[in-house]
Amino acid sequence: MALKLYVHRASQPSRALVIFCKVNEIEFEEVFIDLTKKQHKSPEFLEINPMGQVPAMVHGDFKLFESHAILSYLASAFPKVADHWYPSDLIQRAKVQSVLDWHHSNLRRGSVTYTFNVKFAPAFGLPLNPQAAAEGEKVLSESLSKLESFWLSESGKFLVGADKPSIADLSLACEIMQLDFLEEDDRKRILGPFKKVQQWVENTKNAASPHFNEVHETIFRQVRAMAKKQQSTGEKSEA
Amino acid sequence: MALKLYVHRASQPSRALVIFCKVNEIEFEEVFIDLTKKQHKSPEFLEINPMGQVPAMVHGDFKLFESHAILSYLASAFPKVADHWYPSDLIQRAKVQSVLDWHHSNLRRGSVTYTFNVKFAPAFGLPLNPQAAAEGEKVLSESLSKLESFWLSESGKFLVGADKPSIADLSLACEIMQLDFLEEDDRKRILGPFKKVQQWVENTKNAASPHFNEVHETIFRQVRAMAKKQQSTGEKSEA
Repeated sequence: MALKLYVHRASQPSRALVIFCKVNEIEFEEVFIDLTKKQHKSPEFLEINPMGQVPAMVHGDFKLFESHAILSYLASAFPKVADHWYPSDLIQRAKVQSVLDWHHSNLRRGSVTYTFNVKFAPAFGLPLNPQAAAEGEKVLSESLSKLESFWLSESGKFLVGADKPSIADLSLACEIMQLDFLEEDDRKRILGPFKKVQQWVENTKNAASPHFNEVHETIFRQVRAMAKKQQSTGEKSEA
Repeated sequence: MALKLYVHRASQPSRALVIFCKVNEIEFEEVFIDLTKKQHKSPEFLEINPMGQVPAMVHGDFKLFESHAILSYLASAFPKVADHWYPSDLIQRAKVQSVLDWHHSNLRRGSVTYTFNVKFAPAFGLPLNPQAAAEGEKVLSESLSKLESFWLSESGKFLVGADKPSIADLSLACEIMQLDFLEEDDRKRILGPFKKVQQWVENTKNAASPHFNEVHETIFRQVRAMAKKQQSTGEKSEA
């Protein structure tokens, strides 16, 4: 049964899905949805996901969106996925579910609000918004603090004290990686104080090697090239 | 194994948990956490939920927070809970998970932002905020529109086309019920255009009868009595 993932690698949940499938050797077709060309609002894509967002999935004739729902579906639908990704043990699964639910209104909301308003808005024809960025940074920093002091407080190398990564580690670590798009000073100011968070991102990279780094490197290269082009165009038009 | 739910019935996810347990005849102790007295930030409660929010659960010695994680845990941990609440069928479960994930940044975010900033803020010593209320109403109305046009577009009486309710119906219907705290004009303006949504809330009330109404009536009575008392105190102090 064919599996298609509709993604843009600048989207952190899109990357989590692509990495998950690669690490678990699940065959899939990666369908690129160009957000800067508003392909996620096209009639064809709205047939796949009426909310007009990436990522989305089609497996056979089953359409699904929301990255956490897709990750738990794939972990359950493909028997070769090791149990630690989405534990069958009730208590372990509930812990993973709890961190995934917490993520929505905390780390994800802070990170998206901040990075969009200091970096990505112009690519979507919108101005940067310093006030929204400041509100986003507050939520982001509080969330990183909770990650450091609570979700990573147990002895294991991964979230909720696990020895091996779950879909929550992939989802949240891809969110943190979004900070690599920022200016180095901003990234250091925000992430610098949180040593356990930094070590856990490294642990997740290693556990999902080499795919975690490969997937991130392709998009970082593209975004840097695009920024350079924009800068050079800007300099020419000023000259 | 003892089950304790730490709740305040003015909290919509707290109500969803209480109703779920009552409907499914799961024995539990309801521990009242008085949000207006900041009991959710007390050292004792932070031992239960370090995020300082209701609801939270303790089952034996297992502590859990985030209402969706608790609902799916309870549906799985108590064999007498009928399958439709959290379907074991992979595709049906993925659909329920998708609507639960969507809820966080859409219906819930809009409803909480709006109701807090037009109604509840003073109970927490904060001023009403018309600008935040307007932003909340926008997200809320867009979410109600997606409920009407997408999540309730299939033939069943419940979300994602189901014939019987799931934990998602309880969670989202309790959110909609929060609008009953508003002035009647505000409630009608916001909810009036969405006939399918109104019918689905009725379907959910009926499916979870009599507990759905009982749980809501106790808190509506309390909040109305509190508002009357505040009004009468205000009139006396103005006299």
